[in-house]
Amino acid sequence: MSFETTLLVFELAGVFVFAVSGALAAARKGMDVVGLFALALVTSTGGGALRSVLIGDFPVPFLRTPWPLAFAAVAAVLTQLFSKWLEARMDKPIRFFDAIGLGVFMSTGAMVALQLGQPWWAAIFLGCVTAVFGSVLRDLLRQEVPLLFQPAELYATAAFIGAVALIVAHASGLGRTATMLLGAGVTITVRLFALYFHWRTKPPVA
Amino acid sequence: MSFETTLLVFELAGVFVFAVSGALAAARKGMDVVGLFALALVTSTGGGALRSVLIGDFPVPFLRTPWPLAFAAVAAVLTQLFSKWLEARMDKPIRFFDAIGLGVFMSTGAMVALQLGQPWWAAIFLGCVTAVFGSVLRDLLRQEVPLLFQPAELYATAAFIGAVALIVAHASGLGRTATMLLGAGVTITVRLFALYFHWRTKPPVA
Amino acid sequence: MSFETTLLVFELAGVFVFAVSGALAAARKGMDVVGLFALALVTSTGGGALRSVLIGDFPVPFLRTPWPLAFAAVAAVLTQLFSKWLEARMDKPIRFFDAIGLGVFMSTGAMVALQLGQPWWAAIFLGCVTAVFGSVLRDLLRQEVPLLFQPAELYATAAFIGAVALIVAHASGLGRTATMLLGAGVTITVRLFALYFHWRTKPPVA
Repeated sequence: MSFETTLLVFELAGVFVFAVSGALAAARKGMDVVGLFALALVTSTGGGALRSVLIGDFPVPFLRTPWPLAFAAVAAVLTQLFSKWLEARMDKPIRFFDAIGLGVFMSTGAMVALQLGQPWWAAIFLGCVTAVFGSVLRDLLRQEVPLLFQPAELYATAAFIGAVALIVAHASGLGRTATMLLGAGVTITVRLFALYFHWRTKPPVA
Repeated sequence: MSFETTLLVFELAGVFVFAVSGALAAARKGMDVVGLFALALVTSTGGGALRSVLIGDFPVPFLRTPWPLAFAAVAAVLTQLFSKWLEARMDKPIRFFDAIGLGVFMSTGAMVALQLGQPWWAAIFLGCVTAVFGSVLRDLLRQEVPLLFQPAELYATAAFIGAVALIVAHASGLGRTATMLLGAGVTITVRLFALYFHWRTKPPVA
Repeated sequence: MSFETTLLVFELAGVFVFAVSGALAAARKGMDVVGLFALALVTSTGGGALRSVLIGDFPVPFLRTPWPLAFAAVAAVLTQLFSKWLEARMDKPIRFFDAIGLGVFMSTGAMVALQLGQPWWAAIFLGCVTAVFGSVLRDLLRQEVPLLFQPAELYATAAFIGAVALIVAHASGLGRTATMLLGAGVTITVRLFALYFHWRTKPPVA
């Protein structure tokens, strides 16, 4: 597959998992199908959209193909009909696939930023934004303090560590696909280890 | 009137109604004139601004003419001085004119998207965003869960149905003005029927 | 110094003060270092970023040099380690430097808008947005009703008065640097007088 096709497949896989978790978060607030759709959409595409807007790369990615809107609609309808069933069975799988999505979104976000000529430090930031900002929008639309900002198992930090690895690999001349796989792999590994070993951030110490 | 002038007149009519309803929402939270102005502005222009930003069409519409800022300022000052009077008398009229604004904003938003070369599915989405996103911003700035996402009489759904009608009419070769009137008319009709007959969305069923 | 360098130095001074106040606001909510960084960043750069996005001037200012991200990171780490100490000692200085930042951000924001060809009424609006929108984002991310919108000592109004002064000076043919100093000076003066003499906005009167 060409580099562009690979990027797209990676993004779409992450998009669907994030969409389902967004729709379930809406269902827990008693929202209707409009809310399920909106939270599915912002959770799955908000990070990539903010990356695009910050650097002026238009239209935002979720309007370039019909899939992101379609996935959000499917996630909304499934959740409208089967939210209890999904809620009971999807908790563990969502945690796992969310870690995959975190790594994939970070990697594609950082690489897209580099391809568009952003400097390395901006690419690290934009990779992390791509990976985590959807969850911030989801929480704001539900009127909760973003989980991302609260002491918990490493999440944004996992994306950051993977982004640094990606930038080092890129600077060392590693190929594009290998660089992206490495960045995603580091992020996913740190995230899963953090969940398993309870590596947690802490509130201010003094 | 030229097509561009018609668009502008339509937008401005909607802008003023939405501005007053935004300022009243701010007044109910005890905000000062800065909050009244801010909520008047985002309620009346936030949807069009998000549409522009998502597809990279700058400057955002509310900075192309001085009217949207002026309308928001007038709405803020009127509400600062007469909020109780407006609150008591404007409830019914606002519900009616809000339905008009919903249809007009959807229609102009979807048509602008088509004119700028967006595909039909993106135009449906962007028409709905133009019509409803202002109310989401209003609720976020007041720290309330967006009304748009809660079970209630069809609102975003009315915009969606009108947007589908508009796209079908456009694809059938209907003229621009007739297409826009049809889309707005369908949205307004569905919304008013939904209010009258209590057609409501529901939270997830199981 | 060239005009561009002056702009940059002005912006960076404001950025650091706003970053520390953002990180302290995050610490008061018990956030972790990710939250401290995010609130430091949006408080210090959110206004300039929104100005850029509204008029299509990309990338947003905080991604043009590494300093804004670095300052937010430094503010986050300092606050993570010494939040109690900073909280106890920084209240008065932050109020003072926040007034400085308010004036400087307004002045640079309005002047940048004029340089990019925006009309005078848009420059007034964009100057105020640059000065105050960071605090709105900070409050939204902490899930509080924006302080900016609540009855209090003049804040947005101080920015507005300074912006009007700047526009009048600019139209009168005053030089760029003098115009910016005047605008910032008026805003800072009004803000400090408002704090000292308790000039407060009021909720709707009736």
